[in-house]
Amino acid sequence: MSPQDDILHMRRAVGLAARGQGGTSPNPVVGCVILDTSGDIVGEGFHAYAGGPHAEVEALREAGERARGGTAYVTLEPCDHTGRTGPCSEALIAAGVSRVVIAVTDPNPLATGGADRLRRSGITVETGVLAEEAERVNEAWLTFMRGRRPYIVWKFAATIDGRSAARDGTSKWITSPEARADVHRLRAGMDAVIAGIGTVLADDPLLTARVRDGRTLARPPLRVVVDSAARTPEHARVLDGAAPTLVAVADDAALPEHLGGHHGPAVRLPRGPGGIDLHALMAELHRRQIVSALLEGGPTLAGSFLAEGLVDRVVGYVAPALLGAGVGALGPAGVTTIAEAHRLEFEEVTRIGPDLKVVLRPAPPKES
Amino acid sequence: MSPQDDILHMRRAVGLAARGQGGTSPNPVVGCVILDTSGDIVGEGFHAYAGGPHAEVEALREAGERARGGTAYVTLEPCDHTGRTGPCSEALIAAGVSRVVIAVTDPNPLATGGADRLRRSGITVETGVLAEEAERVNEAWLTFMRGRRPYIVWKFAATIDGRSAARDGTSKWITSPEARADVHRLRAGMDAVIAGIGTVLADDPLLTARVRDGRTLARPPLRVVVDSAARTPEHARVLDGAAPTLVAVADDAALPEHLGGHHGPAVRLPRGPGGIDLHALMAELHRRQIVSALLEGGPTLAGSFLAEGLVDRVVGYVAPALLGAGVGALGPAGVTTIAEAHRLEFEEVTRIGPDLKVVLRPAPPKES
Ligand SMILES: NC(=O)c1ccc[n+]([C@@H]2O[C@H](COP(=O)([O-])OP(=O)(O)OC[C@H]3O[C@@H](n4cnc5c(N)ncnc54)[C@H](OP(=O)(O)O)[C@@H]3O)[C@@H](O)[C@H]2O)c1
Ligand SMILES: NC(=O)c1ccc[n+]([C@@H]2O[C@H](COP(=O)([O-])OP(=O)(O)OC[C@H]3O[C@@H](n4cnc5c(N)ncnc54)[C@H](OP(=O)(O)O)[C@@H]3O)[C@@H](O)[C@H]2O)c1
Repeated sequence: MSPQDDILHMRRAVGLAARGQGGTSPNPVVGCVILDTSGDIVGEGFHAYAGGPHAEVEALREAGERARGGTAYVTLEPCDHTGRTGPCSEALIAAGVSRVVIAVTDPNPLATGGADRLRRSGITVETGVLAEEAERVNEAWLTFMRGRRPYIVWKFAATIDGRSAARDGTSKWITSPEARADVHRLRAGMDAVIAGIGTVLADDPLLTARVRDGRTLARPPLRVVVDSAARTPEHARVLDGAAPTLVAVADDAALPEHLGGHHGPAVRLPRGPGGIDLHALMAELHRRQIVSALLEGGPTLAGSFLAEGLVDRVVGYVAPALLGAGVGALGPAGVTTIAEAHRLEFEEVTRIGPDLKVVLRPAPPKES
Repeated sequence: MSPQDDILHMRRAVGLAARGQGGTSPNPVVGCVILDTSGDIVGEGFHAYAGGPHAEVEALREAGERARGGTAYVTLEPCDHTGRTGPCSEALIAAGVSRVVIAVTDPNPLATGGADRLRRSGITVETGVLAEEAERVNEAWLTFMRGRRPYIVWKFAATIDGRSAARDGTSKWITSPEARADVHRLRAGMDAVIAGIGTVLADDPLLTARVRDGRTLARPPLRVVVDSAARTPEHARVLDGAAPTLVAVADDAALPEHLGGHHGPAVRLPRGPGGIDLHALMAELHRRQIVSALLEGGPTLAGSFLAEGLVDRVVGYVAPALLGAGVGALGPAGVTTIAEAHRLEFEEVTRIGPDLKVVLRPAPPKES
């Protein structure tokens, strides 16, 4: 097998992994391709949902006896622990594959060791093949594992001059129905949706994922309100029971009855700059297995997340309109002078209805 | 000739006309295609620069005797007056063409009458073929003729959150060298560049078109400063003589020596909302044969232009960066509530270096 062939097969495995995106949390996405001894593809699989079969098991099932002596391409190091399914390392050994090619080694201390076990049983193991592409497809989960915090996507909607509301506070609707439908799809792929108390008081949003095509969500995103003074009103729609809700309040806040109690939505967290300590919030969400979260603002909270370095992706819906005054899409974000600007890069720019959708990622640090 | 053929040939003529864009002011762009009696193209021409040959004359020269009995496609009604060149109507008659197809009739009271003269001499004349496309290629000149004011392109540079400067006022550089080079190309195609006194005092800009590829500009854009109180400093770079400059001051302003005098740069205009009456400024620029002008801000002046309905195109250079505070790209623009937002549509969205270039045009009024 030439290195070019390895890359080709791994790229196929990454493509398979991508099919699981949005459905596997709190697990990673994984893709697997199996070749027989003559180099023909005999099995393919991906991890589709938490609790479902792992990619390797799927691919081995398809390959059957033809896996013997063959090669397996896996986007993530095969697990070595017995969770809801048996260890994948053992399944590969039992199937008699002679070579395993791995893109990314597992950062999960519980799952790691798969590559070692394969080697010990005489299988040739290679790692790091197409690692960058495989990392990208698993970016949320890797951030969650390595950073011990959710992967944060900040979403905003604004005019091309950067306003999210007119001078009198009206903001319905800046963007088109097409853009708003896209926001619901975006939410549906996340484990949580985060908003500040300012937004809850101003707009009384539902923060649920209303996906139009008839799908119901197995695990609706957790709704998180960042609310140090526990001001979330009793009849706020975010407390309507349509999806679970967490209200993050300061540890010294006086709790009203509708937020408190053993089964109440409130969780107490330490104070930090601007209100709640966002790193403590991140740790709390990590503890709750929230791998990815959509930050829906408002501008004040988004500014704090950016200032704390907690934004991994920005998704902007930009309307072809001009307001010239009104609340900006982003509040103070720790920048005083131009050299301190948060520099990103455009990853995706698409038209969506009359609007523009832009996806940005932090720019890699400049070489010096 | 079928209507489809007419459209095809006219589209070719519009393409020819487009080649003159940025060079013909204060004349329109015009393209011409001539067919012989068997329907073959025998002549093509476009108007390349003011004072140069008209499109019809160019095309007829190429066609020679083969134009006799043939058809001429012209994007704009042939002129009927003797300017720097003879009337094109006469040239077409003399060449013996039997049919003339015209896209747009001439709004110029001096030039109009061409179609009538052609008809009187027995030529079949059709008008309105592919008129929309032909209007668009001449949009600046038609705005100038019909509205008796320059065609205004507002240019801004901002971060994706709509800021043009950081909190401390620094703004160098928000956008990339590639974007800034594009601004110079944009300026080079305009008859004037307009800035407010706020920008002149803050940035001391040159406002010249520095085109890098060695071309020199036959007619460098007029630099216009909107400055009701005549505060443009004596040593402002905009007064450096590298290009002509006009300083628009209020008619009651006290003029310092460096702005006044018979050959001084100042022109007195009535006051209006925000400073100078912008409609009076438009009339003054029309009088000076300024067909198109690039409005370079700042945000205050741009807001006034928008509020007065004087922006025909918006060109934005949007950097993949976030500031969260600082001066916005656009100041108050007469909008209080969301329903009053200036609605536009994206005409062009392109990547330019790391940045995004967006071109917007006012949205057509909604049908009700
Ligand atoms: N276009 C859009 O994409 C979009 C999205 C959402 C909202 N909006 C608009 O934004 C406006 C509301 O925004 P907003 O800025 O007032 O409110 P916000 O960002 O939703 O909430 C800000 C509040 O969150 C609390 N908070 C707790 N911890 C914080 C921390 N570490 N950093 C920052 N804030 C923290 C603070 O209140 P306490 O001190 O009481 O905790 C703070 O005042 C509304 O007009 C809404 O329509 C627009
Ligand atoms: N990023 C960009 O694209 C860009 C471009 C240009 C400037 N800028 C930034 O913008 C800032 C300066 O902007 P600015 O808003 O202070 O100044 P500005 O818009 O350049 O000028 C505003 C001034 O123009 C005068 N004016 C005269 N007639 C007016 C009218 N009808 N409407 C409005 N203004 C009229 C007024 O002063 P008088 O009353 O004295 O006449 C007014 O204060 C600078 O920081 C500069 O760096 C950014």
